[in-house]
Amino acid sequence: MTFITRHDPGARFCRAVVHNGTVHLAGFVANDVAQGTEGQTRDILAQIDAQLAKAGTSKARILTANVWLRDIAEFDQMNRAWDAWVDRANLPVRATVEARLAGPEYRVEIQVTAAL
Amino acid sequence: MTFITRHDPGARFCRAVVHNGTVHLAGFVANDVAQGTEGQTRDILAQIDAQLAKAGTSKARILTANVWLRDIAEFDQMNRAWDAWVDRANLPVRATVEARLAGPEYRVEIQVTAAL
Amino acid sequence: MTFITRHDPGARFCRAVVHNGTVHLAGFVANDVAQGTEGQTRDILAQIDAQLAKAGTSKARILTANVWLRDIAEFDQMNRAWDAWVDRANLPVRATVEARLAGPEYRVEIQVTAAL
Repeated sequence: MTFITRHDPGARFCRAVVHNGTVHLAGFVANDVAQGTEGQTRDILAQIDAQLAKAGTSKARILTANVWLRDIAEFDQMNRAWDAWVDRANLPVRATVEARLAGPEYRVEIQVTAAL
Repeated sequence: MTFITRHDPGARFCRAVVHNGTVHLAGFVANDVAQGTEGQTRDILAQIDAQLAKAGTSKARILTANVWLRDIAEFDQMNRAWDAWVDRANLPVRATVEARLAGPEYRVEIQVTAAL
Repeated sequence: MTFITRHDPGARFCRAVVHNGTVHLAGFVANDVAQGTEGQTRDILAQIDAQLAKAGTSKARILTANVWLRDIAEFDQMNRAWDAWVDRANLPVRATVEARLAGPEYRVEIQVTAAL
């Protein structure tokens, strides 16, 4: 049996789970939803940085990213924040699709995994 | 080369794959689609319990959950079944988005991974 | 600290990441978007074969597949290409939902993981 570490449990899910050398993050949405898609993406990526740090890793060891956009027409806005953030020497795989999210105020949601 | 165990193969995919200490489940939909979203979620979570048991694990070792709702407005209905089911001492990460599913009768689909 | 190998980096993500005995592929779309959903699926699955080969594995060791369809009504068209491709002795788990994709020309996107 292998060890599982769970970070920041909330009411119904936690923000990160570590197992077998990999940290799995929840789907993150912006804290400040007054922002547009680019700002919300920056907000989310900052949360991801902090969450990865808590697990002892960083975006330099990111493996996968799944991105949901409320409106796929805002792909370029999300990418502006992504491009400014991502470590070009250590790119993850990624898939981006459109989806309505938990509330209409959310323009983008991102879920990542990273190696420890 | 590592071992892979495949459970309950169907025509085009199987219901669970075990590899490297983790079991990956397929996206599960309800067997009884006469039910609403809360009932369909309960139905799915019972199937997940059974499938995890077959792999020798349980929801206490769940790592990730991805939830698709036919109508994101039914978020609370899904969560009522989720909240009654999830092991609060062992919460997974989760991401929930809206998506049309394989048939219009399906209100919710859930895909999980768990540690052995 | 475990090793990560990244294949075919592009501007903002790479096409495959290998870590801990598993290869994670990006969400793949068709190169030839003049084709319908069945043809686009064939195109994607051929790309997946090539990408898995590059990592030293194959569809016989596929673990998971996530499929997004621009129009879930084209489920059967996607499945015709899938059924002709998948290794029936080694079926992955799968989840298929509808989603608008990065451009309107894309009818289908597929993301897989495989064991080395």
